[in-house]
Amino acid sequence: MHVGLIGLGKMGLPMRERLRSKGIQVSGFDRNPVSSDAGSLRDLAARLTVPRIVWVMVPSGSATSAVITDLAEVLSEGDLVIEGGNSRYTDDRKHAEQLASRGIRYLDCGVSGGVWGRETGYGLMVGGEEADVIEAMPVFDALRPDGAREDGFVHAGAVGAGHYAKMVHNGIEYGLMQAYAEGYELLESQDIIEDTGGILRAWQSGTVIRSWLLELAVRAVEEDPGLSRIEGFVEDSGEGRWTVEEALAAEVPAPVISAAVFARFASRQEESPAMKLVAALRGQFGGHAVRQ
Amino acid sequence: MHVGLIGLGKMGLPMRERLRSKGIQVSGFDRNPVSSDAGSLRDLAARLTVPRIVWVMVPSGSATSAVITDLAEVLSEGDLVIEGGNSRYTDDRKHAEQLASRGIRYLDCGVSGGVWGRETGYGLMVGGEEADVIEAMPVFDALRPDGAREDGFVHAGAVGAGHYAKMVHNGIEYGLMQAYAEGYELLESQDIIEDTGGILRAWQSGTVIRSWLLELAVRAVEEDPGLSRIEGFVEDSGEGRWTVEEALAAEVPAPVISAAVFARFASRQEESPAMKLVAALRGQFGGHAVRQ
Amino acid sequence: MHVGLIGLGKMGLPMRERLRSKGIQVSGFDRNPVSSDAGSLRDLAARLTVPRIVWVMVPSGSATSAVITDLAEVLSEGDLVIEGGNSRYTDDRKHAEQLASRGIRYLDCGVSGGVWGRETGYGLMVGGEEADVIEAMPVFDALRPDGAREDGFVHAGAVGAGHYAKMVHNGIEYGLMQAYAEGYELLESQDIIEDTGGILRAWQSGTVIRSWLLELAVRAVEEDPGLSRIEGFVEDSGEGRWTVEEALAAEVPAPVISAAVFARFASRQEESPAMKLVAALRGQFGGHAVRQ
Amino acid sequence: MHVGLIGLGKMGLPMRERLRSKGIQVSGFDRNPVSSDAGSLRDLAARLTVPRIVWVMVPSGSATSAVITDLAEVLSEGDLVIEGGNSRYTDDRKHAEQLASRGIRYLDCGVSGGVWGRETGYGLMVGGEEADVIEAMPVFDALRPDGAREDGFVHAGAVGAGHYAKMVHNGIEYGLMQAYAEGYELLESQDIIEDTGGILRAWQSGTVIRSWLLELAVRAVEEDPGLSRIEGFVEDSGEGRWTVEEALAAEVPAPVISAAVFARFASRQEESPAMKLVAALRGQFGGHAVRQ
Repeated sequence: MHVGLIGLGKMGLPMRERLRSKGIQVSGFDRNPVSSDAGSLRDLAARLTVPRIVWVMVPSGSATSAVITDLAEVLSEGDLVIEGGNSRYTDDRKHAEQLASRGIRYLDCGVSGGVWGRETGYGLMVGGEEADVIEAMPVFDALRPDGAREDGFVHAGAVGAGHYAKMVHNGIEYGLMQAYAEGYELLESQDIIEDTGGILRAWQSGTVIRSWLLELAVRAVEEDPGLSRIEGFVEDSGEGRWTVEEALAAEVPAPVISAAVFARFASRQEESPAMKLVAALRGQFGGHAVRQ
Repeated sequence: MHVGLIGLGKMGLPMRERLRSKGIQVSGFDRNPVSSDAGSLRDLAARLTVPRIVWVMVPSGSATSAVITDLAEVLSEGDLVIEGGNSRYTDDRKHAEQLASRGIRYLDCGVSGGVWGRETGYGLMVGGEEADVIEAMPVFDALRPDGAREDGFVHAGAVGAGHYAKMVHNGIEYGLMQAYAEGYELLESQDIIEDTGGILRAWQSGTVIRSWLLELAVRAVEEDPGLSRIEGFVEDSGEGRWTVEEALAAEVPAPVISAAVFARFASRQEESPAMKLVAALRGQFGGHAVRQ
Repeated sequence: MHVGLIGLGKMGLPMRERLRSKGIQVSGFDRNPVSSDAGSLRDLAARLTVPRIVWVMVPSGSATSAVITDLAEVLSEGDLVIEGGNSRYTDDRKHAEQLASRGIRYLDCGVSGGVWGRETGYGLMVGGEEADVIEAMPVFDALRPDGAREDGFVHAGAVGAGHYAKMVHNGIEYGLMQAYAEGYELLESQDIIEDTGGILRAWQSGTVIRSWLLELAVRAVEEDPGLSRIEGFVEDSGEGRWTVEEALAAEVPAPVISAAVFARFASRQEESPAMKLVAALRGQFGGHAVRQ
Repeated sequence: MHVGLIGLGKMGLPMRERLRSKGIQVSGFDRNPVSSDAGSLRDLAARLTVPRIVWVMVPSGSATSAVITDLAEVLSEGDLVIEGGNSRYTDDRKHAEQLASRGIRYLDCGVSGGVWGRETGYGLMVGGEEADVIEAMPVFDALRPDGAREDGFVHAGAVGAGHYAKMVHNGIEYGLMQAYAEGYELLESQDIIEDTGGILRAWQSGTVIRSWLLELAVRAVEEDPGLSRIEGFVEDSGEGRWTVEEALAAEVPAPVISAAVFARFASRQEESPAMKLVAALRGQFGGHAVRQ
């Protein structure tokens, strides 16, 4: 089995390493020739075992759509594309149909694990046809964490189900992070607490709230007590918003995940028009002094 | 009828004016001799019709408790104290009992209207005994807005009910202000909207969201388009927090009022420890760049 | 001036009445022949002063799009369509372009006021070209509340601005209603409060939270004390969700409006899968009894 | 070392077992004679090594206060009480002072781990004097999980710090549980998702959101797919509310933890007065049908 991997960035590069370390033959392609194994997509296609398996790992949105369009030209009937980026699940149906018109098969795969995945393996959530999933299983088995397959891999459902599950995963992630963050601030706010870092560390074993994110929080506070070197400015990469949008569409109450998303928006505002109006209203009715 | 009024500040002073303009004889007492009619509480007591009616309008908490303690000494059996400050309703029971031990009667009264009350009248919410409420009705009628009594005055229930109703009023106020504020920010964020101030103004008549707070918002934006002279730093004076605490105690879901309170807290933070942790966590697992 | 009005339902019918009562000649069209003045759209067009003004007041989405498509056939170059339904502002651009290809002009108009508008007038928010707005002003003036034009009418900006402003209006409406509702429940939960209806009524004059929605709350509680005849099952008609979606797109924190939307979702659930999982988790780690 | 343990319920009984299995001699006391080793507190005191160490593990509030009062009579100067229940940290100062007046020392200890602690060890957060903590370390070491002490034990600060840290721990727990719960409901709501249980299971390894709570969720869904045997009725035991109260007092924004608390309140309501009012308002202004 010789598979292709398109996109050798922060995620793709360590994935190529992990695949190779697990005995999967991989040729990678990237527009950056330094890391690329192939000179072009056509060159890449020529190197692979037929029917080909090509994993796409480029930024979601237009970059992914462009690669899919190119692959429709370059690949042959019966080949299989696995789209592993952080795409919105609604894009999967379009991509699957686009490739199906050329007889090319399609799986979508949500990949979790961040920069740690090279070492510990990646959590994988896959959508598509059962037969295609089985055919690609050696690739999935190489990427996922060691141990029972079911603990780090799932065939979640039809095309799109993998990215939908990954989106929900990230929505949950937003909520978890914000919950720890509020607790952290409550510890920092209380005078009788003398060792916030020690408390986080002590929560790692035996408690109800132990988790991998907590371990990362322990590391972060050990590396930088008081987090004095970090600004409270938090980006969001889309999945949190999509989760709230899906909650709206499905009429699912999502107060915690939406609060976590909005806290990030607020963290990025130098000025809040909303809070300016609230301050102005207090000045209007109460003669309350406002900061000018 | 010659009544006493203790506390001649931002609220008490215009209340004395309104009472006098409505034909109620009032002597005021304040520690500031410039506005005070009486030189001492004892002097004040000597001027009033017996049984005396004394309205207390000083800051809630220790200032109010100190005045109640002093009045227990200075007043006589059968006198009536009306506590009109922004006290927590749980303080009313203590104050009522303290005075009752001297045979002095007690009403609590929530007062709304801010600096506009002198002119338009004050919304009044009263707690205590029916007979006491009836006795003090001329004072209430002078302070409340003109028109039907029931539209600006209520005997809400037993001692504490007036301040409880006022607390809930303020909790609602927090929610209303934040709702308008979020809407305002959404208008300001959208390029095709050319006239935010005009939209606020046009909402004043015929729409579902017309209100007095909206009129104040119109004034604020007319006086300072873009609210460029105001900082989005919003104080809170206690009742919002109490409302959330009462919601917790009574197991009443209060997501909107609590969100409004927390938005004010966040507006006052130069740095958010919570969001620093979220940023740090993103850096830990994702290799996401963080602002340092 | 003889204008057309398409859609004679809960909103359109009283609007025709108000227009006529203000001296505007109107022919209405509805698929229901009982209320329709014209037998067909073509018949309607034949009756109107040229260049024609046609107001569309049908349900948003496919119904509105179908009418726009039909009007593109029936109307002539230079005619003016005013789309007054509860459409999403993103639909306006499509409709405007569709009509522009035939030389037909387009305004979008958000209309607030509900069933009360016949009597009090409708709050109007308009998007489009200045010249078109001026041409249609007699119609707007007839529909809006009496008094200063600026208090019930606004030209908010380019095409789509009217419906965007109306969407934000409705988002605010959700937040306001939920704030009053949480306060109402807090009054109902407290034993010392003896007269919830009286408190609502007394808030109508002099207080900071006086509003038209509060007046409606007073009516509702007077008609049905304790609201014993009403189920706490709350529909939403779309604009609340859109407002949250726009907040996500524009990165505007909207914790209050989103909390109000989610409270409606939760009100309609007979069973909450989320809360079942929380209950199950408590059982798992704490041996807490769960209801089965 | 022969220590005392008061309270042999759902927590105390397995703690006695774990202590004994780790070689600590323990006499337990409970009002229930079946599990009690001693016939009375005085009897218990007589059995222990002097200076005595007595661990109190009874329900927080009046039960704990009563035991502290009894211990002030029964113990001697120099003895040490460790209060391990789920007390509010503000109670600790009172209890410490009460015992200090008799020369008895006091530590507070937050204990996490639920029914699993017997086997895996309990996460421990302690408040009080360093010397007292060191003296009691053999007990803490027996109760905490095996491995590095710092991963399951912390001396968090002065008296009260242990229970404060435990309160924050539980507040975070509420937020984490609600985040998973919202994600679970989003999976259940989506047709293309065919294997919710499998997705939860696959998140256990390699993903960012892996945690002990997630493992419990996997168990819960495996035991009862669809959670059909569980009602979405969720109790709360106090710490979540206290966390929100502390956030209010410390002016810490806590939107996620409060949303989680309010979701539990709502889950227990058969009828929501708030949502009845929202429904009534929609009926009033829009003529929207309401369920009666």
